Parts: sequence; C-alpha cells; structure tokens
Amino acid sequence: MVRTVRLAVIPGDGIGPEVVGEALKVLDAATVGTGLVFEQTPFSLGAARYLETGDVLTDDDLDAIKGHDAILLGAVGGVPGDPRLVGANIERGLLLKLRFELDHYVNLRPTVLHAGVASPLASPGEVDFVVVREGTEGPYVGNGGAIRVGTPAEVANEVSVNTAYGVERVVRYAFAAASERPRKRLTLVHKTNVLVFAGSLWKRTVDAVAAEHPDVSVDYLHVDAATIFLVTDPARFDVIVTDNLFGDILTDLAGAISGGIGLAASGNINPDGRFPSMFEPVHGSAPDIAGKGIADPTAAIGSVALLLRHLGEPDAAASIERAIAADIADRGDRVRSTSEVGDAIAARIGS
Amino acid sequence: MVRTVRLAVIPGDGIGPEVVGEALKVLDAATVGTGLVFEQTPFSLGAARYLETGDVLTDDDLDAIKGHDAILLGAVGGVPGDPRLVGANIERGLLLKLRFELDHYVNLRPTVLHAGVASPLASPGEVDFVVVREGTEGPYVGNGGAIRVGTPAEVANEVSVNTAYGVERVVRYAFAAASERPRKRLTLVHKTNVLVFAGSLWKRTVDAVAAEHPDVSVDYLHVDAATIFLVTDPARFDVIVTDNLFGDILTDLAGAISGGIGLAASGNINPDGRFPSMFEPVHGSAPDIAGKGIADPTAAIGSVALLLRHLGEPDAAASIERAIAADIADRGDRVRSTSEVGDAIAARIGS
Ligand SMILES: CC(C)[C@H](C(=O)O)[C@@H](O)C(=O)O
Ligand SMILES: CC(C)[C@H](C(=O)O)[C@@H](O)C(=O)O
Repeated sequence: MVRTVRLAVIPGDGIGPEVVGEALKVLDAATVGTGLVFEQTPFSLGAARYLETGDVLTDDDLDAIKGHDAILLGAVGGVPGDPRLVGANIERGLLLKLRFELDHYVNLRPTVLHAGVASPLASPGEVDFVVVREGTEGPYVGNGGAIRVGTPAEVANEVSVNTAYGVERVVRYAFAAASERPRKRLTLVHKTNVLVFAGSLWKRTVDAVAAEHPDVSVDYLHVDAATIFLVTDPARFDVIVTDNLFGDILTDLAGAISGGIGLAASGNINPDGRFPSMFEPVHGSAPDIAGKGIADPTAAIGSVALLLRHLGEPDAAASIERAIAADIADRGDRVRSTSEVGDAIAARIGS
Repeated sequence: MVRTVRLAVIPGDGIGPEVVGEALKVLDAATVGTGLVFEQTPFSLGAARYLETGDVLTDDDLDAIKGHDAILLGAVGGVPGDPRLVGANIERGLLLKLRFELDHYVNLRPTVLHAGVASPLASPGEVDFVVVREGTEGPYVGNGGAIRVGTPAEVANEVSVNTAYGVERVVRYAFAAASERPRKRLTLVHKTNVLVFAGSLWKRTVDAVAAEHPDVSVDYLHVDAATIFLVTDPARFDVIVTDNLFGDILTDLAGAISGGIGLAASGNINPDGRFPSMFEPVHGSAPDIAGKGIADPTAAIGSVALLLRHLGEPDAAASIERAIAADIADRGDRVRSTSEVGDAIAARIGS
C-alpha cells in the first residue's frame, strides 16, 4: 500500500537549507520501503526571496501551501540589522502569518535532556517534558498600535487577545497529551495575579477540563516562578500548557537547559487537520554560520520525527528518535559537519 | 549633625515580619552613631489585615505612607488557595498599587553571585549585573477586560501600555547606571519582532539616549534569547533595561542562577523624589515556612543597603553589603535561624 504525502518544504534562509537537506535525508532513510511516499514541493520564502522580489508571503504562496498535507521549515530571517530588511519583519509576515493562517493553535515543543548532552545546569536530573504553547492568540495577534509616534507624547499599545474558544482547544490538547504520558502531570503557567482577565480565563478553563481528566494531576505556576523551577528542578515538569508569549520564553529556556536550541524540535500543529501542520527547529537562521556546513541539523531531524508522528506514523517517528538519541549519546566532543551528522543519524535508522 | 529619616515599615504576611525584624536590626547596627536616625512607622497591611478588616490599602493608609521618606516592605500575600482571599488579589491591590501610586518607575534588581554561593549552573562565571525593570507601565497597568465571562464566547484582553514619557525616563536611569559601572554595558531586552509597536518605542528610545552616552556600549536581545544567555553566559550582562513583565520574568531567573531569590534584594524607586521609594526582598511571603524562624533574611537586609544608597548614604550601604558578602562566604552548609543570620551580619558591621 502506498501512502502519498504532499510535503511543502520551506528551506528558508541562513542555515535553513543546510539543516533541511539533512532532515530530508533522514526522512528518506526512515520511510524507504514503507510505502510512505513524500511528494515534495519546495517553496522559496524568507529574507532572500524578499530581497529578490519584495514578497514575503503572497496569497498564491499561501494557497499553494494549503494544498499540502504538511510543511517542513528550516529557518527564516536575514542578517540582523541588514538595512534592506528594515520594515520587512520576515518573522511576522511569514512565520507568524503561516501559524495564524493555518490555525496552528498548538505549538508543541518537547524538551528532553539526552544522555551524553552537557546541560548548563550542574545537576539537571531527568528532564523530559513537553511545552504545549498556544499558537494563535495572546500578544502575538498583531493587535497593537501607536499614536504620536516619534514625539514625546507617543503611546504604543499591544493587546493580548484570549478567547474561550482558543484557550479551551489548546488546554484540551494538553490534557490529552498529559493523559498519554507516564507521569500524567500538567502545569499551567501564566501570570494570573497581574494579567487577571486573561489569567482567570486560562485558570477556569484548566479547572473545567481537569474535571474531565481525573487521571491527570494539575498544578499552576506564575511564569516568573516557572523560570526558577526550570533551572532548579526541571525534572518536576511533565506537560506545561501556556500562552503564546510565555511559551516562547519558556521554550527557549527549556532548549538551553537541555543542551541548546540546536537540538530543539517543534511542531506548529492544527490538530483539526483543516490545514497542514508545520514542523521546524526552534533555532533561527544563524546567518553568522550559514554556508559553512557546520550547523547542527539535529533539531530539524527531530522535527521530521514530530511530523511523522503527526501523520500517524509512530514507527517511523520512533526510528528517527532512537537514531537521534543513539547519535547524541555517542557524540562526545567530536566536531562534525552538518552532513556528517545527517549521514550518521540516517545510517542508524533501522539498525 | 542628626538626619532624621521617616521610614514606613510594612512587615506584611508570612515570613515578612521575621525578615523585616532582622533587616531593621542590621539597619540599626549600620547607622548607630552616624547621626542618621530612623523614625519608624509600622503599617499593618497585607492578607492578615484584609482578613481582619476587609481593607487592602485605604486612602488613609496611602496618604500616611506618602508622608514618609522611604518604605521597607517584607512580603505580602496569604496562603495560596485560601478561599477567604479569593477576589482580594493582595498583590495588585497593595504591592502594585503602591508601585503605581508612588510612581516607582525604576524597579532595581541587582544580581550578584557571591563567593561561596552554589548556583544551579555548572559554570556560571562572574555574575554581577543589575536589571532596571520599568515599574509603572506595560501589561501591569491593569488595562484589561473581558466580555461574556464564563460562556464559550468569552474574550479576555490585556493591554500593554507604553509611553515615550515612561520609557524614556527609565531608559535614562539605566544609561546613568551603566555609565557608573566599570563595564559600561547596557542590554535592552524586549520582543521587538512580535510586539512591534511597543518594541519600536523601546528601541528608538534606547538608540536616542545612547547617542548621549558614547561611553556606554549597547546591545539588544529578544526576551527569549535573553533567558538562554542567563543560563549559558550570565557574565555577559552588566545593565539590563526592560519592560515590567519581561523584567519580572528575567529577575526571578536571575535570582535563581545567583543562588535563589532568598538572596535577591530590590528597590522600587521614584528617582524624582516626589514619593517615597520602597525596598523589598524579591521573595514572597512563603506561608509554608512562616513562624518557624528559618527564613533567610539576607534579601531583606540587602534591601536595606539599597535603601541607604538611595538615601545618599553610600558608606552605611557599603558596610552592610560587605557584611552580607562576608557572611555568605562563610556560610557553608550551616543551618542557622533567621535571627542567627541577622545577628551574624549585624555583628560584622564595622568590623
Ligand atoms: C521568530 C519569532 C517570531 C518566533 C516566536 O516568537 O514565536 C520564535 O522565537 C519562535 O519561538 O518560534
Ligand atoms: C507579586 C507580583 C505582583 C510581583 C510582580 O509581578 O511584579 C512579583 O512577582 C515581583 O516580581 O515583585
């Protein structure tokens, strides 16, 4: 039986194309002979495309992407401070636009400290949690504005928008995820003592859904306290559910304590299946090391594993995850090129 | 020459009274014989007062506090989940209300990893920076609201308000602080790629004030990236300037990497001198260990040093800071009571 998956591939800028190349190599190794066939469409999007054509993401691009089953993205963004990019905001116009237009309301960011990886923490303990970050609301909605710009009387506002509709669906997803994990523990992170309206909505929603999941134990942390526990006792976390901005902050910190965002994979998921979900490393385009073949493709490869799991192919996903873990355990201090890492992980698949 | 300082003392809840007792003991030791006299007015404020009288902070309280030169606060907040406190929100009604009413636009949070203190980081390096957190704007203004509460159509918004007036004054304070430090380095932390209106105001303001301070080197980090550097290379920071919410998050993380918020002192400062500034440990009321005499009073004592520096008494401030550093260097694994720590630090003053 052949199953054909239409995969939109957005290599993007900087190290994006390099790490995506390795991720596709491993995807191939993990699916060859399984009947799973990936029909790939490359999309040229990012700072490079913008500099060439002035387009960030056209309606045609968006429509074409929507015709796919899933998306693999490398990284987008030009050289910081490039004067030609001033006003472009590739992150908002491309990355966030895709997340919003494709209703990626779950931003899934697993954090595992693999054996053999050095953490900046002295005694990290067993780190294995997943952050379920809301992806379509909060202060990310673009609902800001300013008056009297450039004068001493300027006022610049940003609005965090939170809806029962949006909060409930991501909270349900997080409970379902917690329910399937051995420890069955969910932590809501917010700042309910200051952001009282949004906080109250999140808190009430978690309380209501918790009643349907007596198997899951629930606790709550203010976001400031959560950063403390992430460095003093990260092993306490199992599933964290939180808003878009807090999730952004916590997952970079989570990446750091688990060995660097060079290893952190993520999925921007539309669980309804109405739109293609998008998988990407948490790291950025790192223009300073682009083109040198030294970027670590592990996070991109891990994102392919998340993609396969999302597509309902847990065996292929697990084969990649095992290969990554085995490769990492063996790394030591060796310096390898981007393609050497990709080759090594691909070679371990199925072995 | 006698200088009389009218000091409002708010011991507060939980461990607040215990640590404030030690802080006043050390204040006494540091100022006895110097001609500096503290006329103390105790204010009974916090969860305990609320439970007794139903008041959080009356207009009379506020007026009386305004008649003082400075405020020392322990910690406020009752037992989490106490049903009698539902709807009270002591933090907003008392702590934040004081910060806003007294125009504490600089929330000063020094972070030092003292010799002898165990950091959760494996190799922290030399950690010595100060966070200048804006205290009167951002998402803390209380400008939120909700409609259709409790229905599936609920919408809950929170507005972050940022003004040129508010941003410029705290940025100026931060540059002045950076200018006086050996490394003369300032890092703006924000999320300019997402919060584009507020971010642009902060960025333009820092750029403009930087032009007046050619001696200060300036860089910028997104808040998510800043959390990474706080655990991988905290030694890179000298002065961080940031908004109210990001400052809240970063300073708890900063406290954690430098040995715990049990050591972290802070000042809520009105640099104009129109209102009394308020000094408080970063930690909370910790009801779980209250009344046992085991809370660490070091952060409260450090807050007294900040208070003295703010009052223009750098010698007395430095004597406390030296005594704290010496005590910490000597601590080892000894378990001491709250008053033993206070006694030990007081005894070192002037020695
Ligand atoms: C690039 C930026 C807009 C993005 C975000 O803030 O979500 C990034 O930090 C991330 O976490 O994927
Ligand atoms: C108690 C709370 C309102 C407060 C804040 O968020 O500012 C605290 O976390 C702090 O950092 O002083």
